[in-house]
Amino acid sequence: MKTLRVALGERSYDIRMEGGCLKNAGEHIRAVCPRAKKLFVVTDSNVGPLYGGTVLDSLEATGFDRRLLVIPAGEESKNAALLSNLWEEMLEFGLTRTDAVVALGGGVVGDLAGFAAATVLRGVDFIQLPTTLLAQVDSSVGGKVAIDLRHGKNLAGAFHQPKLVLMDPETLSTLDDQTFSDGMAEVIKYGCIADRAFFDRLAAHPSRKEIMSDIESVLYTCCDIKRQVVEEDELDTGRRMLLNFGHTIGHAYELAGNYTAWTHGQAVAAGMVTAAKLGVSLGVTPADVPQQVEALCAAFGLPTSIPCDIQTYASAVGRDKKGAGTDISVILLEEIGRAVAHKMPKAQLVRLLNSFDKIP
Amino acid sequence: MKTLRVALGERSYDIRMEGGCLKNAGEHIRAVCPRAKKLFVVTDSNVGPLYGGTVLDSLEATGFDRRLLVIPAGEESKNAALLSNLWEEMLEFGLTRTDAVVALGGGVVGDLAGFAAATVLRGVDFIQLPTTLLAQVDSSVGGKVAIDLRHGKNLAGAFHQPKLVLMDPETLSTLDDQTFSDGMAEVIKYGCIADRAFFDRLAAHPSRKEIMSDIESVLYTCCDIKRQVVEEDELDTGRRMLLNFGHTIGHAYELAGNYTAWTHGQAVAAGMVTAAKLGVSLGVTPADVPQQVEALCAAFGLPTSIPCDIQTYASAVGRDKKGAGTDISVILLEEIGRAVAHKMPKAQLVRLLNSFDKIP
Repeated sequence: MKTLRVALGERSYDIRMEGGCLKNAGEHIRAVCPRAKKLFVVTDSNVGPLYGGTVLDSLEATGFDRRLLVIPAGEESKNAALLSNLWEEMLEFGLTRTDAVVALGGGVVGDLAGFAAATVLRGVDFIQLPTTLLAQVDSSVGGKVAIDLRHGKNLAGAFHQPKLVLMDPETLSTLDDQTFSDGMAEVIKYGCIADRAFFDRLAAHPSRKEIMSDIESVLYTCCDIKRQVVEEDELDTGRRMLLNFGHTIGHAYELAGNYTAWTHGQAVAAGMVTAAKLGVSLGVTPADVPQQVEALCAAFGLPTSIPCDIQTYASAVGRDKKGAGTDISVILLEEIGRAVAHKMPKAQLVRLLNSFDKIP
Repeated sequence: MKTLRVALGERSYDIRMEGGCLKNAGEHIRAVCPRAKKLFVVTDSNVGPLYGGTVLDSLEATGFDRRLLVIPAGEESKNAALLSNLWEEMLEFGLTRTDAVVALGGGVVGDLAGFAAATVLRGVDFIQLPTTLLAQVDSSVGGKVAIDLRHGKNLAGAFHQPKLVLMDPETLSTLDDQTFSDGMAEVIKYGCIADRAFFDRLAAHPSRKEIMSDIESVLYTCCDIKRQVVEEDELDTGRRMLLNFGHTIGHAYELAGNYTAWTHGQAVAAGMVTAAKLGVSLGVTPADVPQQVEALCAAFGLPTSIPCDIQTYASAVGRDKKGAGTDISVILLEEIGRAVAHKMPKAQLVRLLNSFDKIP
């Protein structure tokens, strides 16, 4: 079993990955929550039928009192009403401060259940059992939990590190191709911002089948990069923003598609390509980078450009919660494998972004 | 101006107290939030008309862009729907991570606004301007913020230390006698658990008028005790539970009165008297203590016993979030001025509590 340790003092935890490990979830959780009697498990209507039974059986066999709550699959579930419902259900179940919450599913389940865990009784232990590629390489690691508000995604939340991230790569076999590709956008991102050799490895094996043949190693590399960044900047006040490569512009694309036309991964992929072009335009990024990012995204069926008008760019940039005041930090590539935060006036960014759409 | 420093590393902050200081709220806030442009001020329908104008004038004079949100006065406002509403209003106002939330009011306003501040954009700076005695000596200090759920009070929340607690004792003049007495229950509690000389001083001046003649010193003593306890146990995993003296039993009384017959302070006062009797019964507390606590509470118009049946005790104790499993820690007095946590089976506690009601 591959294991990574996220070193955050009292909030340190392991990321563990192995095919079939969900069958032993109970033992792994017992090891990190020795005092817990009750586990409140949150999953969604896609994942529950597939893996809920396996996990519950293991929890029961380990002697936990457990309750399963199934939320509707989809981003719409990351809302305040459902959060409130989770709180009430947790209390109804009799959860105490020494018990724990378990998220079994993708990013939506992890973000919602994690925020509930961060706040019920002012915070209880939290376990991530991510089942999508996106959740395994990104959202389950690092402690960011949140719900969406009318004004945008992840606008109310907390930093609440899990006690354990346990990922079973076998769950990836049940993802449809688009959901797998969504995760690949984040995988490609890690290559772009921090690991040229990894980027080249992906480029040399540009198919789902090839990635899956070496998946534990891919998960390990991605989680290891995220681990380093999170250790250096747990509360996202500096270096952690490098993980936003492709994301600020991606937000604009999500907004342009009204959060329905494009998935997060698709928007991030197109956002990375545009960010690479932006970097070239600003003299930060070598001229051959955009084409390489574009080719790798395209190989995994991800879009490399998304139509977006200037008002939408402005709105996305203006409301982006990372940007205070009139300036904004955009993440650019100095080369493939090295990212840098570039501060610039929001107005200039919007003008430049808009100009790319005009270039054939 | 009297000032106390709560030393919590990066989360350290000042508690400042002076008559009339609300007039200079803007300058005080500017000193601790140098980068903030926007301040989102939460108050309630009682406090807003009295002090909202003074505070807003000062914020404007200091150059802040500010918005005031007035919530209905009363505990009912500490709910999930209003929290969600606050989040949306904060985003609508354009709050960013470098801005701040200000709570102007009593414990309800501080708890609700503080929880919103702890979670909006995953946490922004927070300023407490407490205007009730209870909020000034207790709830504004220490970073506990929360809302109520169907299952009880403060069941969803966070630890989010303020950047500043600024209290103006002149606001106490507009409290009705019962609200003032509610705060006195917590003032008396500090004497009971940590400061015999302070307890004696209160006993020698047992009237609102006498307390008010030396109010800054009273506030200072209470906040100083709370400061020490919070510094030693910020996240309430040990010593901080001593502040719960009278509270676990008080919760039962609040429940017995369906949270309407008795205020929090009234329930705590009766809870302290019962806890003193419990300590005598268990051989922890000297026999003359209950009468002294009783006399001091009575002097400030607080009830010293509240009818409660055994089912209500059981329900309050069983669901009390501080108690995990079958045991519970009750805070007892070894003498006036020294408290200790006493762990005992919940069933035994309930049996004993029920027996006191039968003793004439």
